[in-house]
Amino acid sequence: MISQKMQGLVDNNSVIRQMFEEGKRMALEFGEDKVYDFSLGNPNVPAPDKVGQTIENLLKNEDPVMLHGYMPNAGFTDVRDRIASSLNRRFDTSFTADNIMMTVGAAGGLNCALKALINPGDEVLTFAPYFVEYRNYVANYDGVLKEVAPDTETFQPDLEAFKDAVTPKTRALIINNPNNPSGVIYPEDTITAIADILRKKQEEYGTEIFIISDEPYRELVYTGAEVPYITKYYDNTIVGYSFSKTLSLPGERIGYLVIPSEASDHDRLFQAVTIANRVLGFVNAPSLMQKVVAECLDEKADIDFYARNRDTLYDALREYGFSCIKPEGAFYMFIKSPTPDEKEFVSRAKEEHILLVPGSSFACPGFVRLAYCVSYETCVNSLPGFKKVAESFGLIRK
Amino acid sequence: MISQKMQGLVDNNSVIRQMFEEGKRMALEFGEDKVYDFSLGNPNVPAPDKVGQTIENLLKNEDPVMLHGYMPNAGFTDVRDRIASSLNRRFDTSFTADNIMMTVGAAGGLNCALKALINPGDEVLTFAPYFVEYRNYVANYDGVLKEVAPDTETFQPDLEAFKDAVTPKTRALIINNPNNPSGVIYPEDTITAIADILRKKQEEYGTEIFIISDEPYRELVYTGAEVPYITKYYDNTIVGYSFSKTLSLPGERIGYLVIPSEASDHDRLFQAVTIANRVLGFVNAPSLMQKVVAECLDEKADIDFYARNRDTLYDALREYGFSCIKPEGAFYMFIKSPTPDEKEFVSRAKEEHILLVPGSSFACPGFVRLAYCVSYETCVNSLPGFKKVAESFGLIRK
Repeated sequence: MISQKMQGLVDNNSVIRQMFEEGKRMALEFGEDKVYDFSLGNPNVPAPDKVGQTIENLLKNEDPVMLHGYMPNAGFTDVRDRIASSLNRRFDTSFTADNIMMTVGAAGGLNCALKALINPGDEVLTFAPYFVEYRNYVANYDGVLKEVAPDTETFQPDLEAFKDAVTPKTRALIINNPNNPSGVIYPEDTITAIADILRKKQEEYGTEIFIISDEPYRELVYTGAEVPYITKYYDNTIVGYSFSKTLSLPGERIGYLVIPSEASDHDRLFQAVTIANRVLGFVNAPSLMQKVVAECLDEKADIDFYARNRDTLYDALREYGFSCIKPEGAFYMFIKSPTPDEKEFVSRAKEEHILLVPGSSFACPGFVRLAYCVSYETCVNSLPGFKKVAESFGLIRK
Repeated sequence: MISQKMQGLVDNNSVIRQMFEEGKRMALEFGEDKVYDFSLGNPNVPAPDKVGQTIENLLKNEDPVMLHGYMPNAGFTDVRDRIASSLNRRFDTSFTADNIMMTVGAAGGLNCALKALINPGDEVLTFAPYFVEYRNYVANYDGVLKEVAPDTETFQPDLEAFKDAVTPKTRALIINNPNNPSGVIYPEDTITAIADILRKKQEEYGTEIFIISDEPYRELVYTGAEVPYITKYYDNTIVGYSFSKTLSLPGERIGYLVIPSEASDHDRLFQAVTIANRVLGFVNAPSLMQKVVAECLDEKADIDFYARNRDTLYDALREYGFSCIKPEGAFYMFIKSPTPDEKEFVSRAKEEHILLVPGSSFACPGFVRLAYCVSYETCVNSLPGFKKVAESFGLIRK
């Protein structure tokens, strides 16, 4: 009855989202403090105080017709100006409002970018492990997502495999930096190498290949590591940003796209993403939240909170014999399954009321994702369960 | 460079939106009070006070992590419950939260509905004149919008033409009640007749044909006329609602879909629209605004304000010799062009700084749309200009 494209999606509904709903069910059954739900990237740190204060000020001082009204589809010009200035100050770029389109979260932005770029049959590359929705976003426009197999030692892009994967049909590469689910950051030399490869391939094939950089975790960095600003390394780039994680506003759906002036046919591309924003039914990013984020560009949620969770879990899991890379950014740990079929590991953890997402959901079986954007108590109280799981897989002796 | 599908859209960018931006430009050049911009359905009545009060209360009393956080893709269950109850009370229906999905405005909701229903090549019918974006929404899923020609005397659906237009490929009919751009309401006997036709055609062809009713103007009714609630007349229905007009929140992108339990394969269809919400990149309707509208279900913007504009313009335009149906709902007047090519009329009006949208944008050439959701002063001050236009077309003597 439903459309063919949706049939497969309904039959294989998002494992992550199912777990989120399962977690809510288990919390009702066993009590919220007895369930350790590490399944969803739903920040548990409240938005900075300035968010609420800004909303109150805007309600007091601004004309409600403007504040809640339509504006150009690309967003309020003053908001786009301020975002451009903030980026310029931080990353030594030279954007103006003409480079910024406000979007309904990063997910909305990526859909606009793909709608603007993809013809049916076009290939979009990404590095496994990757955020599973990329496949659906690309399929919305009849493109084909091709994954470059992961380097499960470092979780850095396998550049040789990448080079071989680029074809005349390649239209874009989606990268996610810092990475969900691995928590690694792609450093400058990796970005430079990717850019070099794509420049050569563009020339070889006479095509235009875009890097779409999905950066909701840009501000969530623990190690002092720099996350290179992609537009400085390659011309045909689109950056997708979201305030979901930085300002703990995931439900509000507020983000932006950056399309640098150096991108091929910039003006027409910018018009295309703006029109895509309209015809896909977003129309515009939520108006009040546009005005809010413009006042909060120097704010961020309490990162020390996530750092403490990371350290607590990482140290304990290593002690119990689990193996995983120490995350440099985002709020995920990608843990090697102690048994080849990671779904077994996920099931065993669930018996201890610990909810994890199988790595197959990120095109990387044999691993599981743990989202540590939860309360500190959840982390600490989950540890005995993790210990039991480790024991049952023989990682440590009882 | 951009995708083929977007090329046509960029080349023929929305006339309405272009005018909106042209209006802003003219306001800068000539002064805001010297430009009479009737081009966009952007409410000029502020949101009811309760909207701002509710936001303040929510900020004071609710956990910010919940208030701005993720929830199930269909929306907060308590919000969906309250909307169901409100509909049940007002329309004698029996919905529950399982019939309501919160959406990013009506435009977002319609896109989710179409993604869930349409296979490539499916036909979607609508009655001209119609909101021009329907064509783009249907094309997003490779469906084909077929318009039923208008009855330019009454602007009620031509039921004989409709009957002939339904084919085995017909997947849905989009209606818009009250109607943009004509301002008419389809009464109960029209809805009953449409439902009868579709039931027969479903049986004849062995297909399922949906009525998608786009109802952002449901609460904007001047005449005491009833707008029939479509789910009571036909099983395969989806209602798209938006708070944009009722609560004057068009920039906030908040609305919902209703999918009645009687719809064929309801559970799977509901799952499909919910997943469509996710994969199209909406993810969920903005969280704070979900909580706000749930508290404001009995509020509406000041309709007397629009009624005064309607009466002022209607009376004057009739006096100047223009011909048009008196709107029963929404905030649009659809005026017959005094010259066959309505673009000439639009150009002449623009010389008087009056911005109108040509009827060709609604598949109804020979007419123009006037959106009277503007200040009363704009209406009154535009009248001398309209009079001059009437004179120049010989409707009245100088």
